Parts: sequence; structure tokens; C-alpha cells
Amino acid sequence: MRAPDERRPNMNGRNMREVFQQELAEVQERLVAIAESVHEAITLAQQAFSTSDVALAERVIEGDQHIDAQADELDELAIDVIARQGPVARDLRILVSSLRISASLERMGDLARHIATLARYRFPDAVVPEPLISTFERMGELDIEIARLNVELLKTENLEYHEKISELDIELDELHKSVFDSVLAEEWNEPANATVDVTLASRYHERFADHAVTIGKKIQYLSTGDWAPAEEEA
Amino acid sequence: MRAPDERRPNMNGRNMREVFQQELAEVQERLVAIAESVHEAITLAQQAFSTSDVALAERVIEGDQHIDAQADELDELAIDVIARQGPVARDLRILVSSLRISASLERMGDLARHIATLARYRFPDAVVPEPLISTFERMGELDIEIARLNVELLKTENLEYHEKISELDIELDELHKSVFDSVLAEEWNEPANATVDVTLASRYHERFADHAVTIGKKIQYLSTGDWAPAEEEA
Repeated sequence: MRAPDERRPNMNGRNMREVFQQELAEVQERLVAIAESVHEAITLAQQAFSTSDVALAERVIEGDQHIDAQADELDELAIDVIARQGPVARDLRILVSSLRISASLERMGDLARHIATLARYRFPDAVVPEPLISTFERMGELDIEIARLNVELLKTENLEYHEKISELDIELDELHKSVFDSVLAEEWNEPANATVDVTLASRYHERFADHAVTIGKKIQYLSTGDWAPAEEEA
Repeated sequence: MRAPDERRPNMNGRNMREVFQQELAEVQERLVAIAESVHEAITLAQQAFSTSDVALAERVIEGDQHIDAQADELDELAIDVIARQGPVARDLRILVSSLRISASLERMGDLARHIATLARYRFPDAVVPEPLISTFERMGELDIEIARLNVELLKTENLEYHEKISELDIELDELHKSVFDSVLAEEWNEPANATVDVTLASRYHERFADHAVTIGKKIQYLSTGDWAPAEEEA
């Protein structure tokens, strides 16, 4: 067993700890890069969704492959670092967390793609009928802001971003519930396809934010030294 | 760097490789145990869903915490084994895959819970209106069978189970599409709440199967020696 702060010269004379810190920094930078791609994807998806812009929707749908590739490359790097450095304790948890965070980011990319797919599918019509336009505008704004804060969180590991994301997530959950209230109200006279679309769209928006909250919890565990997913995520 | 098959005596005189193999077997057994819990959860959820049995639905909803706890314990074990044994190459990939498989299983548990929650929410009414009853019966059967095959797959690592799961997943995807066709047809005269419920229920059933396919792909990578998530999962 190796202590995490053990110092051994490697072949280039640099100590292992320095190399390891540099590799951890590289992992973090790549997570930030994926989060930036996700922020761009949700921004464009929301624009495609609210303006029925089918070309933009296509761009988001195709662009999701890039996010998937970024996530896979990050995973390969993290696994490679684990194999070469044999980290233990907190160092190992940082790397395992980075695998989980990349999975959440990849899933956020999928959800942006799903939102874009709804826009493309319904084109040239709008996905959202008139009574719910402002609700979905706000949901989109919230997801975009959450994606932006998520980039900052991964960049700085400042937990204030996680708190802010969690607050916005609460607002998003309330909007998600309000969509169902609208759809189930007597005044709802939209055709079934509109009901299907807003049900799915609302769920995608809500899930997108959930993943950002999950990422924040991972960062929180690491920075507080706690690692209690059983209690927190049950 | 340690070679994966390096043999060193540990304090008890047993060689590291033997201990490691035993720990890998323990990881695998726990994955099987979680898959069994998921199989039970989807079986009960489907029964609660099709018979509007609210007590059964409650049982599934509460039971999901147990699946979450099982998944967290498995993750802790896998991380502990990585920290103590410092595995490389295929050994490390097996352990990282087990973390990913546990995440998929945990998510399958969530989806079973979501299906049960729909049953509870709509009680004493049935979730599914008459024209779609047989479709959802079949979707439920498929998910239950997929969950059963998933247990066998994790037990035996026999890829024939993965092939069978993938076949059933295709049938499930077709049923999922057919639900939308039904809802969007002119004959559909159900209230909006039924449209919302069947949209969500159909999505949950479809996603449940997707996760089993994902698990099969992880096992496939390991057994074929390929590890190419970028190509396969894009």
C-alpha cells in the first residue's frame, strides 16, 4: 500500500506526486470542457425548441456524439491514471467521482439532444402550445443557467454554485409539476400529441437539472471529506 | 507498476492474486444480488401497475431504498478493492465496469419505483385505459423477462443472455412507438391524464430495458477484450 503523499522520483526525476497532481488537473480540465459542451448543447437545444429551428435542432443532435466522445476519452484517461498511479483514499475517490461526473454530463447531453429531437419531430409546428409557452421558456432559461453554473462549479469547486443550482432545481421541479397541473386542468383542450410532447419535454428539462444536482453532491462529498452516497442519494 | 498476475505473499501467506480473485467474485455476487432485487422490484411494480394494487406499489417504492443501499455498498467494496489491490489492465476494467453496472441497476430500480408510483398516484383507477391494456401487459412481461435474463447474464457472463435481452429490447422499443401511435390516433378519446400517464409509463418501461442492454454491453467489452464505449454508445 502506498501513502497518497509518498514522494518517489520517476524516470524524469519529477516526483510521482507532482505527476499525479498534473494528471488530476488534466482530468478536471476535461470535465470542465465537457460541461462547456453541455452548456452549449442545452443553449442551442432550447433555442431550437422555442423557435422550431430544425437546422439548429439537427446541429444539437449531431453534436451529442462529440459530448459522448469527450466523456469516453475522459473515462479512458481516469482509468489510465488509476492503473499507472495506484491512488488510494481521497485521490482514488476523486478519480472515481470523475467517472461518475462524466456519466452525468454525458446524460445531460442526451437530454439536450432529446429536447432538440422533439423540436425536429414537431417541425414546422411548435412543440409547446400557447398556454405553456412562458412555462417552458422559464424551464429552458433555468436549465441553461444551471448548465452555466455547473461549468463554474467544476472549474472552481466552490460549493456556492452547487447551492445555487439546487435552488434553481427546486424552481424547475415546481414548474415541472405545474405543467402536469395545466395538462390535467379542464381548460386544457390541446390535442393528444401536444400532451405527449409537453409531458416528455417537461421530464427532460427536469432530469437535466437533476444530473447537475447529482454532480454537485459528488463535489460536495469530496470537499467535505464525506462520502456517504447511501444516505444522500437514497 | 504491478503486473496483473504478479504473485506476492500477503500477511496471511495467501498470495495477492488469490485474495484478489476472491474479492472479484464477491463483487460479482453482489451485482447478482442487486440484479435479483431489481427483478423482484419490476415484477411487483408491474403487478401493482396492472392491478392497481396500492399496497404493493408502496412496497416497491419503499423497497427501492434497499436497492440504492446495495448499490452503494457494492461501490464502496469495489473502490476499496481498487485502493488495496491497485489492479491494472483488465482487472481494473472489471472493477470500473462493476461501478457502472451498479449505477445501471440502481437506475433500473428507480424506474420500477416510478412505475409503482404511477399506480399509486392513479389509484383506485387503473393507469392504462382499455385500448392499451394488452400493450402494457406485454411491455411489463418483457421488462420482467429482461430483468430475469439480466440476473443470469451477471451470474454466468454468457453473452447469449445479452443477445436475448437485446432482441426483447427491440420488441419493447416497437411497443413504445406503438403507444405513441395509439395516443396520436384519431380514435384516442381518453382524457389528458391518461395521455400523460401512458406517455410516462411507456418511457419508464423502455428505459428500464435500455439499462439492461447497457449492462450487457459492459460485459461484452470485458469478455471480448474490447473496450470501445465511444463507438458503441455514441
